[in-house]
Amino acid sequence: MRSNDSDISISRRQLLARIGQTAGAAMMYQAMSTLGHAKESTYNSAINLKGAPPGTSVLILGAGIAGLVAAYELSHAGYKVKILEYNHRAGGRAWTLRGGDEYTELGGFKQKCEFDPGLYINPGPWRLPYHHYAMLDYAKRLKVPLEPFNQINVNAYLHSPTAFGGKPQRVRQVRADFQGHVAELLSKATNQGGLDAELGKEDKEKLLEALRSWGLLDKQYRYTTSELTSGKRGYDVEPGGGLMPRAVPSTPLKRDDLLQSKLWGYLTTPIDYDLTPSMFQPVGGMDRIAMAVYREVAPLVQFGAKVTAIDQNEHGVEVSWVDAQRGGETRHAKADWCLCTIPLPILAQIPVKASEAMQAAIGAVAYESAVKVGLQMKRRFWEEDERIYGGITYTNLPIQQIAYPMAGLNQPGKGVLLGAYMFSANAFEFTSMTPQQRVRAAVEQGAQIHPQYHTEFENGISVAWHRSPFTLGCFAHWEDNVRAKHYDNLCAIDGRLALAGEHTSFINGWQEGAVLSSLDAIGRMHQRIVATRSPA
Amino acid sequence: MRSNDSDISISRRQLLARIGQTAGAAMMYQAMSTLGHAKESTYNSAINLKGAPPGTSVLILGAGIAGLVAAYELSHAGYKVKILEYNHRAGGRAWTLRGGDEYTELGGFKQKCEFDPGLYINPGPWRLPYHHYAMLDYAKRLKVPLEPFNQINVNAYLHSPTAFGGKPQRVRQVRADFQGHVAELLSKATNQGGLDAELGKEDKEKLLEALRSWGLLDKQYRYTTSELTSGKRGYDVEPGGGLMPRAVPSTPLKRDDLLQSKLWGYLTTPIDYDLTPSMFQPVGGMDRIAMAVYREVAPLVQFGAKVTAIDQNEHGVEVSWVDAQRGGETRHAKADWCLCTIPLPILAQIPVKASEAMQAAIGAVAYESAVKVGLQMKRRFWEEDERIYGGITYTNLPIQQIAYPMAGLNQPGKGVLLGAYMFSANAFEFTSMTPQQRVRAAVEQGAQIHPQYHTEFENGISVAWHRSPFTLGCFAHWEDNVRAKHYDNLCAIDGRLALAGEHTSFINGWQEGAVLSSLDAIGRMHQRIVATRSPA
Repeated sequence: MRSNDSDISISRRQLLARIGQTAGAAMMYQAMSTLGHAKESTYNSAINLKGAPPGTSVLILGAGIAGLVAAYELSHAGYKVKILEYNHRAGGRAWTLRGGDEYTELGGFKQKCEFDPGLYINPGPWRLPYHHYAMLDYAKRLKVPLEPFNQINVNAYLHSPTAFGGKPQRVRQVRADFQGHVAELLSKATNQGGLDAELGKEDKEKLLEALRSWGLLDKQYRYTTSELTSGKRGYDVEPGGGLMPRAVPSTPLKRDDLLQSKLWGYLTTPIDYDLTPSMFQPVGGMDRIAMAVYREVAPLVQFGAKVTAIDQNEHGVEVSWVDAQRGGETRHAKADWCLCTIPLPILAQIPVKASEAMQAAIGAVAYESAVKVGLQMKRRFWEEDERIYGGITYTNLPIQQIAYPMAGLNQPGKGVLLGAYMFSANAFEFTSMTPQQRVRAAVEQGAQIHPQYHTEFENGISVAWHRSPFTLGCFAHWEDNVRAKHYDNLCAIDGRLALAGEHTSFINGWQEGAVLSSLDAIGRMHQRIVATRSPA
Repeated sequence: MRSNDSDISISRRQLLARIGQTAGAAMMYQAMSTLGHAKESTYNSAINLKGAPPGTSVLILGAGIAGLVAAYELSHAGYKVKILEYNHRAGGRAWTLRGGDEYTELGGFKQKCEFDPGLYINPGPWRLPYHHYAMLDYAKRLKVPLEPFNQINVNAYLHSPTAFGGKPQRVRQVRADFQGHVAELLSKATNQGGLDAELGKEDKEKLLEALRSWGLLDKQYRYTTSELTSGKRGYDVEPGGGLMPRAVPSTPLKRDDLLQSKLWGYLTTPIDYDLTPSMFQPVGGMDRIAMAVYREVAPLVQFGAKVTAIDQNEHGVEVSWVDAQRGGETRHAKADWCLCTIPLPILAQIPVKASEAMQAAIGAVAYESAVKVGLQMKRRFWEEDERIYGGITYTNLPIQQIAYPMAGLNQPGKGVLLGAYMFSANAFEFTSMTPQQRVRAAVEQGAQIHPQYHTEFENGISVAWHRSPFTLGCFAHWEDNVRAKHYDNLCAIDGRLALAGEHTSFINGWQEGAVLSSLDAIGRMHQRIVATRSPA
């Protein structure tokens, strides 16, 4: 089962040994840092749960990715595992909505997804950065095929209704022009002696050389309409073949207009550690990874179980639960240990036998608000008309983002856009609407960027996470002072109870945080179990 | 056959009409420019070859993408088409090398590709930018599945043996740090009044606000070690879950070291019109698109035909050819018209009956030199050890680039790297070596960046385009003065002969140039044919 991991670890070590033998210490050191042995990854794929005492039982609350991974690892290590899950499906927020799916949110609003076969949205997590090692490792071990997810598409738009007359601007042009204007200004300051206190003569020359290259400046250090700049920002008429019309260079956006537009606020994306290539999505929907783990532990899961109390003493835990839909009789699940992955806004409403410190921590963390809206369109006009294949358009309208599907690129037929992905105030505004109103608002706002919405929209679905009955919010938002006071108390094993989930991590809102927190928690739990059972 | 195109055109027009009706002229105008009707695309998918006179024949020389597309369109329009092709395969430079393939280059060096099943390299074109409309359209019409090709991977390296002690630097860090240092310097100059002649008080404030955001500066406008900068450039110890070790921020590269390193020379890639997302590759190899067109015209192709003369008079063309391998008897192919896509270095050696102007143009264009080396590795160590999934590492070693495969991401097993992709002087150097020497040199140089090469390399293959018997070079390199004098003469129909191929385009070295030139040439040829046959 775990041979794959061991193979990797061994071959790495073997490689280093061989390099050490053949090339000496200097090469060995270089190899070690190149191989990332120095400091980079915090994920160790070889979780060691050896020596589980026979018969020891662990009750897991929640079949999201944290609970599923814990069940998978603990059961393989020999523990007796059971999961209680509120929903009638596994995955939790690692969730994909497809045609036929139904969803009822708080307030009683029931939606039925009307997407055509093969189309979907991921209301929760939807992408995997390359440095989410644990998620990528589970995908690899469980043979879940991934495909590239491009966050960045330079042919998508940046948009503000109050900038450039409301006309969406291509990312590539805003990006190249901001860089060019900055380079021109800094060249000017440097050439006019404005930085003589800072830079020696040689430094100035090197800086100017770099700025000219990086900023696409001409010999006079100007950022202008030219072949050079059009080769980066794009042309008005593109180069063609034979005797087709000759290329016409494009004209950069003016510096003042660009500064005024505030569209530069979207330009840090290309250097965002979490959002730059390479990134991935599972082929077919984000739930595919959680479902692959679920398949390994399916017999252990009790669906439709609403936890009503968590009790423990020095011998074990007892969790009370009722049928999530019908209520009725209270049932009890007992185990030696408990791993609870229930999101804090839910957990805070459940009586939990735990230290005051943990109780205080459970109640201390606010949850981020987020809303997503999926919109099915009759045709993929963003590709056909506007040549936008994947990636994201950003706007300062409440919808905030329009994301184009990475599946089915350059194929004919219908498509589903992520028509809104909003946080905070915008999300609260949309959360107060009915799902139908949210969809309508997303269509109206999106049509300011893509007028084709008016004729191509077919149906939509929306998830407002603060109305989600199984989370009551999107993900934990830890303020620094709250983290300083409560985080360690939330993560410490309390008697026979440990917590896990993205809320018990520093990677909030990402599955990687949930998985790492889960592995960390069961690792510590296992150590404690083994230590307790060892002869004194 | 072409209904797909018509559908698109019609629905666009319908859409605009509908928008015009319902939303008025202003919305209509916005829609038109949003839809790219204004100026952007030079490719009109609806090539109109209606009214071909029955029985009119066109002989096409070369079954590369230009010749194949011409054959496809002309035969569908009712022309009688034949293709002569030198190689024993279609596609020309749109070529994929897989295990078992053999290739003999000038000098007699014969190589047999030893890659494992499923692995390949594309010695010629290997990627399709989103604005190569014609290529994407043929892929769509012929149902060739595409997958994303990421040129840019921020976790790949920039490398110089003389910078940072030869240690490869992650793209993300060089990129964020250069941007940060530039922003800090420009903030300083602005705050110290160095740009007061250029910027008013309000402008200065806006600029400083933008620089702080874009450059990740702190409140004192400094680019420093911090959570803020590590959230972009990456951490020394990454954020984890539970009670795992706490994150440790990383320290930016020093400004002076960065300027000295010249690694900034690689930083314009993110804003390169041709090389930024979205980009594509056909699933399985670049030859898949050419092969899809070939399947439509296969009965029309004569393989192994080496053209020895092109003759014409006012009634038609006659092309002489011999068996490309055995030589022997000269054969003759006659037609009313001829479209010649033979690369210029080859064509210049063939007697061609054409105007002096065209003859001069044929001899005037130099071809770029390029070498690619494919290296099979026992395992995908760049993913497993270094978390590089696709994208390109750049170095100023002669190999210039190492490109990581986009196929099979996050899967176990072997992989093929593009171990070198070099131009000009570096390419000439490698062209003078035997294929085996090239592979060895690529392994030695690449090992400076990836020491795993020493133990993981299995086999390799290389293509030096100046030794290619069917092109004698990689692609046309048009100097401006040569273009001004000869380009129109090369593209003009000369009697009954027209030329096509990437050399008769402004998109040299890309299949899009070949296809656009081909469509332009057959469009003009068709117009002339129809005009000639029309009643006076």
